[in-house]
Amino acid sequence: MVVARRTSRDIRSESRLDVLHAVLSAGETTRGAVAASTGLSAATVATVVGELIVEGILVETKTTAGRIGRPTATIAMSAERGRVVGVDVAETYVRAVLFDTALAQLAAVELARDEHDLDPDSVVDAIGRAIDRLLAQERVSRGAVLGVGVALPGLVQGDTGVSVVVPNWSWHTVELDRLRERVGLPLVVDNPLKVIATAELWLGRGRSHTSLVTVNLGTGVGAGIVLEGSILRGATNSAGEWGHSLLVLDGRRCRCGRDGCVEAYVGVPGIQQTLREIAPEHALLALDLQRDFIIGMAEKADEGDAAVSEAIDRTAYYLGSALADLVAVVNPEIVTLTGWTVWRLGEHLLPATRERLLSQSPGGSAQGLEIVVSDVGTSSVATGVATIALERFLADAGLLTTRIPIAL
Amino acid sequence: MVVARRTSRDIRSESRLDVLHAVLSAGETTRGAVAASTGLSAATVATVVGELIVEGILVETKTTAGRIGRPTATIAMSAERGRVVGVDVAETYVRAVLFDTALAQLAAVELARDEHDLDPDSVVDAIGRAIDRLLAQERVSRGAVLGVGVALPGLVQGDTGVSVVVPNWSWHTVELDRLRERVGLPLVVDNPLKVIATAELWLGRGRSHTSLVTVNLGTGVGAGIVLEGSILRGATNSAGEWGHSLLVLDGRRCRCGRDGCVEAYVGVPGIQQTLREIAPEHALLALDLQRDFIIGMAEKADEGDAAVSEAIDRTAYYLGSALADLVAVVNPEIVTLTGWTVWRLGEHLLPATRERLLSQSPGGSAQGLEIVVSDVGTSSVATGVATIALERFLADAGLLTTRIPIAL
Repeated sequence: MVVARRTSRDIRSESRLDVLHAVLSAGETTRGAVAASTGLSAATVATVVGELIVEGILVETKTTAGRIGRPTATIAMSAERGRVVGVDVAETYVRAVLFDTALAQLAAVELARDEHDLDPDSVVDAIGRAIDRLLAQERVSRGAVLGVGVALPGLVQGDTGVSVVVPNWSWHTVELDRLRERVGLPLVVDNPLKVIATAELWLGRGRSHTSLVTVNLGTGVGAGIVLEGSILRGATNSAGEWGHSLLVLDGRRCRCGRDGCVEAYVGVPGIQQTLREIAPEHALLALDLQRDFIIGMAEKADEGDAAVSEAIDRTAYYLGSALADLVAVVNPEIVTLTGWTVWRLGEHLLPATRERLLSQSPGGSAQGLEIVVSDVGTSSVATGVATIALERFLADAGLLTTRIPIAL
Repeated sequence: MVVARRTSRDIRSESRLDVLHAVLSAGETTRGAVAASTGLSAATVATVVGELIVEGILVETKTTAGRIGRPTATIAMSAERGRVVGVDVAETYVRAVLFDTALAQLAAVELARDEHDLDPDSVVDAIGRAIDRLLAQERVSRGAVLGVGVALPGLVQGDTGVSVVVPNWSWHTVELDRLRERVGLPLVVDNPLKVIATAELWLGRGRSHTSLVTVNLGTGVGAGIVLEGSILRGATNSAGEWGHSLLVLDGRRCRCGRDGCVEAYVGVPGIQQTLREIAPEHALLALDLQRDFIIGMAEKADEGDAAVSEAIDRTAYYLGSALADLVAVVNPEIVTLTGWTVWRLGEHLLPATRERLLSQSPGGSAQGLEIVVSDVGTSSVATGVATIALERFLADAGLLTTRIPIAL
């Protein structure tokens, strides 16, 4: 076994990462609160915070004089250190979001895409145009952009990989080089599952839990896994492909080409299929766009539509069963749900999903388990990949050396 | 997020663990080879090895004079530092194995058990008798025993857990206290999945891979998971319960009470059921013992029995499908197979299992993946839990402080 060695420099860098993590998670905090939440000594926190203030990463925001002792200063990320861009590339759109260096969302630009056009050149072009438009609209100079992160569903490593999520849409070194050239700014590219895990780790339940699974539900589905405060990437950056694990041996054909995948039941086309099995002529099935279908499901459920309620119940049964498999293998402290199906349909799905999950998880694996909607918010992909871009900037500036994601 | 802090003392302890790991894995090695395999500096290795020799953990075995330079000494674990006992508690037997402190197997005692008797008192008694008999037979004084490890299939944490593997057989603090009293020696108790992962980590493919899954196939089935050189325990020590993840939604009833679990298809009773579906009157189904059934399957397959060959093919299809789910989520470098089904039937199962696994693993998750029979050997459970007992002894002696399993 080869274990990465830890040096004093690594420890110093880990302290910085932990301090940044604590400040970013808290928004505004104090040195004392950082020491309490990280377990670092007050002296170490004071040293690290001092260095990060000199480097323009942190700022003191205000000073509160107590009745006794020295005044207490609050600290925060320095929002004005620069700008970071996160780009969410999906089948049907490219969305570029501008963040300050405190990861507050400032503005966004969304370009619609033809979901049938999977030519990497056209995707590269759309990403480039979205970023250009965003920077022009917000009058941000390119020199102020510390990093750009792009979440790509078809991203694979190595030469022979095949895209899971979108058949025939896989990105290799050559396409990434083209993207890098087109963007012309410091760039990181990562898989959406690693991206949502990063967002959950820095800005969601990762602030209070060391092991978690965050599940993304949309057209496609997948899981981001955080263990001991680090993102599980796997041997080929493919960990978390729970959407293409089996729910039903030899079951429904999945768009990945295999049969019985979780995604074929709880991805939006899978939910449409479930409704079709219950009520083949249901009006919602005539809607052209998946998002309209999901919005319609929520509305019809509120109106007491029996077929829709039945479809939601079956979907919760599928989802709870499939989540139980993930819980059986990984045994996390908490499962969070994210993605646009969840934003619209989460409150309808969650109670029955939770019940099925808890009853199906073997032995002690669900003991104390929480299952909740993620509180990262609706731009979790863009936020996550912007966070990775910010981490990468800090690493390239020599401010961090370890626990940096291996984004490409 | 709370991250465990690392101190200089931890680093020193990790260096010791890495050196011990390297020496134990190699059997006999040199300081130079240890430095090369651990990534530690030659100076650090020299210091750590010197300390461990003084403490009687390592010994110099021989000195080889090269043609130039100083003579090179080989080092090894000090086999005579003491004895360690590993106890494998299964449904049908209790097996106690004696090891020296180089983890060489010296002797074993096996007591048959009535598999219907799940009373913890009778299990405690059988464990105690097996250890007593082993020590008496080998004339080992109790003072020479540095530690005893017991692998318990029904082990749970917390107050409300239910045994997964053997219904109604769950061990809580009270039974563990009784066991501790009966054994009267330094005791660790752990879950068999964590135990086989430990054996694979120290003595198997963990020597050459940092992320792996080892799968145990017998009456029950489960997975031990190693990530970044550490065993994945999970929030409630329940990670790896892949045997009770779903293979077929609403499929065969599993002995855990749920439907469609992997174990209901690839555990021995599952394989019996598959043969029964193909040839209800097959002579092998009349055999009383599961082990005889598996031995008979191998023999009949060699003789060209069509029903048995079909049952093996279907089992490989189930097993490959279920392993693909594990690979999709965890994305390890290698999968190893262990357990008595594998020792007897492995060569018949492996080719078709590998083919199905590779074709079913999504995207890049099986890229470069190896799937092999574990080379830890047929006492992997006893060896693994003896290894944990040895680690615990080293920790209690102040020789290690981190990365120690949380065995009870």
